[in-house]
Amino acid sequence: MDPKDETKTSTFDSPVCVHNPHLDLLKDDILYHFSLGTGTHNLPAMFGDVKFVCVGGSPWRMKAFIKYIAAELGMEDPQSDYPNICAGTDRYAMYKVGPVLSVSHGMGIPSIAIMLHELIKLLHHAHCTDVTIIRIGTSGGIGLKPGTVVVTKQSVDATFLPKFEQVILGKTVVRNTDLDQCLAEELLQCSKELNQFDTVIGNTMCTLDFYEGQARLDGAFCSYSEKDKQDYLNRAGEAGVCNIEMESSVFAAMCKLSGLRAAVVCVTLLDRLKGDQLSSSSEVLHDYQQRPQVLVGCYIKKQLNAKAVRN
Amino acid sequence: MDPKDETKTSTFDSPVCVHNPHLDLLKDDILYHFSLGTGTHNLPAMFGDVKFVCVGGSPWRMKAFIKYIAAELGMEDPQSDYPNICAGTDRYAMYKVGPVLSVSHGMGIPSIAIMLHELIKLLHHAHCTDVTIIRIGTSGGIGLKPGTVVVTKQSVDATFLPKFEQVILGKTVVRNTDLDQCLAEELLQCSKELNQFDTVIGNTMCTLDFYEGQARLDGAFCSYSEKDKQDYLNRAGEAGVCNIEMESSVFAAMCKLSGLRAAVVCVTLLDRLKGDQLSSSSEVLHDYQQRPQVLVGCYIKKQLNAKAVRN
Repeated sequence: MDPKDETKTSTFDSPVCVHNPHLDLLKDDILYHFSLGTGTHNLPAMFGDVKFVCVGGSPWRMKAFIKYIAAELGMEDPQSDYPNICAGTDRYAMYKVGPVLSVSHGMGIPSIAIMLHELIKLLHHAHCTDVTIIRIGTSGGIGLKPGTVVVTKQSVDATFLPKFEQVILGKTVVRNTDLDQCLAEELLQCSKELNQFDTVIGNTMCTLDFYEGQARLDGAFCSYSEKDKQDYLNRAGEAGVCNIEMESSVFAAMCKLSGLRAAVVCVTLLDRLKGDQLSSSSEVLHDYQQRPQVLVGCYIKKQLNAKAVRN
Repeated sequence: MDPKDETKTSTFDSPVCVHNPHLDLLKDDILYHFSLGTGTHNLPAMFGDVKFVCVGGSPWRMKAFIKYIAAELGMEDPQSDYPNICAGTDRYAMYKVGPVLSVSHGMGIPSIAIMLHELIKLLHHAHCTDVTIIRIGTSGGIGLKPGTVVVTKQSVDATFLPKFEQVILGKTVVRNTDLDQCLAEELLQCSKELNQFDTVIGNTMCTLDFYEGQARLDGAFCSYSEKDKQDYLNRAGEAGVCNIEMESSVFAAMCKLSGLRAAVVCVTLLDRLKGDQLSSSSEVLHDYQQRPQVLVGCYIKKQLNAKAVRN
């Protein structure tokens, strides 16, 4: 189940693993924050063919992605407006076209963790196999030109260590945050072929806060100086950190535990060494946010074409 | 600035404090996740009269709340559908009627923290004074009949200690999670006058995770037994914990730092000693979720009536 196992990319029928003996004792499993459940929905019929899951913070962006990927794969339905599968709740939004599922996760580790628990159970109940999951997000860069895309090598914490601390029954359990290195290289290769924007592989720092937690000077509270900020971000850069966001560590940890091939692809909206505020025009920020979508769209198309040739 | 200062309730013109000398150096302040800013919006004109801010996870619920409070205060506008002030983004939703602002915050500490940083700056830029802020949310109860409303005395962490750990420049700073005890008592009194549902004052445990972090047996991963779960929740109960949710600690800490009178009012959707899944009908869950709204609506109405009499 090691995602770094090189045989993994050519192995088929790899399941999505839950590690919870109690689930077998449940008559029905209610996926509350999706407004879905095993007793109310035929999950294998709805989701059994899913091979690619893309997740991102913003529900609008995840709807834009499903429209984009449908067009890329020639699967547009001019009659349909891609219904939100989670229309019964406003916690998350979910869209599907062919083998691609697009799900929003809100902001921060707790929000994405709730979504991932229910997504992993959904994929398990639906008997999905060989699923690749990619987070497409936004981030602050360290010393990179804004608009650069970062494919995460390792997710590190605020002390630059590659670990995620999960509290269970009041005790801290440390989990690994490795991501699939083959998948990261394949994504980098796609970017080279696209030749539309810069993409790098590097470490991503995952924080619990956007302002004080990322050394910003523009929050409601700030007790440190510009020099303290620069020193901290420079130390992060020296530790291999290319960008900073708020979900990658628990995403890496949970995907690894469940045997999902996982990658994190985030565009940098600004260079944090030069500022804190997101002051670029909305057109520029919109263009940047499309880059992870374009990159992942290229990857999915390539994989599906390769599979069609094999079959 | 101590919210427990008994003179506080009768002191007027108490400002909303930011603690950040760098803010004065900013030409404009962009409140990115609200899609608002000092350079693009007249914040004093838009928000200067705000006296009550209600926040909750779900955007739908916060829109329902503004409709409810408008009717309670006799401020309905039959011509208007209460526009979302943050329509330029899908990160948060914000509604206003008279002196009441209603804002969604998503799920989890990081998500509400981003909102609070920008909300505190908004109230500061708008020169608001004497602001009371109340989180109206949902939670899991410990040994309480489902539907019971809990007004938080102290927010405690997963080891039942009343503290919030904020990471700043990679170092952990411990912050106080006290809430305004007078406000809590006033809310309890409102519940007695309403006499529609049970309300208690007690401690609230705030966790970073909904499944393993709250000892649920129905997540994608679970490495402990039913007995381990019961032992943990019983220890929480013995420490005075009445309910469990995911935002109260940073809410209490940030409101205290900024001098806002703050309360947390959460309904319990289930008794966690008896189960984990949210299996009540959607009608029952909907009814429960209205209770904090009704309680806070009663409180706001009473305060405004008292102020009208004083003037």
